[in-house]
Amino acid sequence: MKENLVITISREFGSGGHEIGEKLAKALGVPFYDRQIIEKAAEHTGFSAEFIAEHEQRFTSSLMFNLAMGNYTRTGELPLHDQIDIVESNIIRDFAKEGSCVIVGRCANYILEGDYDCLNVFVYSSNAAKLDRIMSKYGYDAKKAEKTIKETNRSRSKHYSYFTGRIWGDRNNYDLMVSSEKYSTDEIVELIKCAAEKMK
Amino acid sequence: MKENLVITISREFGSGGHEIGEKLAKALGVPFYDRQIIEKAAEHTGFSAEFIAEHEQRFTSSLMFNLAMGNYTRTGELPLHDQIDIVESNIIRDFAKEGSCVIVGRCANYILEGDYDCLNVFVYSSNAAKLDRIMSKYGYDAKKAEKTIKETNRSRSKHYSYFTGRIWGDRNNYDLMVSSEKYSTDEIVELIKCAAEKMK
Repeated sequence: MKENLVITISREFGSGGHEIGEKLAKALGVPFYDRQIIEKAAEHTGFSAEFIAEHEQRFTSSLMFNLAMGNYTRTGELPLHDQIDIVESNIIRDFAKEGSCVIVGRCANYILEGDYDCLNVFVYSSNAAKLDRIMSKYGYDAKKAEKTIKETNRSRSKHYSYFTGRIWGDRNNYDLMVSSEKYSTDEIVELIKCAAEKMK
Repeated sequence: MKENLVITISREFGSGGHEIGEKLAKALGVPFYDRQIIEKAAEHTGFSAEFIAEHEQRFTSSLMFNLAMGNYTRTGELPLHDQIDIVESNIIRDFAKEGSCVIVGRCANYILEGDYDCLNVFVYSSNAAKLDRIMSKYGYDAKKAEKTIKETNRSRSKHYSYFTGRIWGDRNNYDLMVSSEKYSTDEIVELIKCAAEKMK
């Protein structure tokens, strides 16, 4: 594998992307960043990790709503989710600077574009496969699983568009897109390893 | 690799997908079908291969245009491009029945769905990379290359939607999508081989 390669993994909720990223990092012997980004952001901002986790995804892009909710405390100050985005972007750049790693989510492919060697991966699967996975992982019934999948993926998609001006899951943002449906987690890890090793 | 695995390759014009498919088939020691589908369709219909090649892509979905052009020679008779689609679909099913192979284009992923074990691949690249490839492959200037890329891909996209009711290049239609931009043809061939060997 080339030196200092950052593998970014974007993933549909329910596709198993987090687990794939974690196993991939272990297989490559490089750091894995997902929850750690939240923890670092908590350190930097003084908010709790739970507060960051809640507000990095559940944002609104409506100015009026932000005003009503008091997110604009002074004229010219950014809404909270924008502030969190900026802090997290800096953390992601710091992680990439340290060398090869696997980063899950948070528009890392966009943040590092042009400055670091990246292999940008998107993991997805069919609605039925996502439903199966979430029902068995969290013990949800089909209705709750479906609602959670829909809302979480809509939220990821909205955040990606808001932050990057691009479309989440659009092939032009990724080097490799793989469906987790016909593969085990270990097989996909091997496949991404294979792609990382061959990268120019 | 599992027995009787059909690898279908859909590809943006200019991404090098045809060459990837050809080399992949050679590397796996299985038949490769692209132009052969046209030749078989010519045999079956009595039209020339050139005539088939012209009419399988350059179709219109407008009933009025077909009527005006005389494609409807009798009430209830299908337009020519639909007839070609049916003939080509049967040829693709016959090829798949014979065992493992690589099939390029012609909605083969859709035609074989549910009936055969398939690894469905989509190959793409950025506009700049497509432009570079087509200019150097055909000796076109940038303007002609850009026009040809745009028209050919629009035509593939329209045909895929017309025939399948789905969106060409939408991840839900494929198991693996790979950009040819950061890889050589041989590297992508290895990557797809790797995916084929790991397939459940």
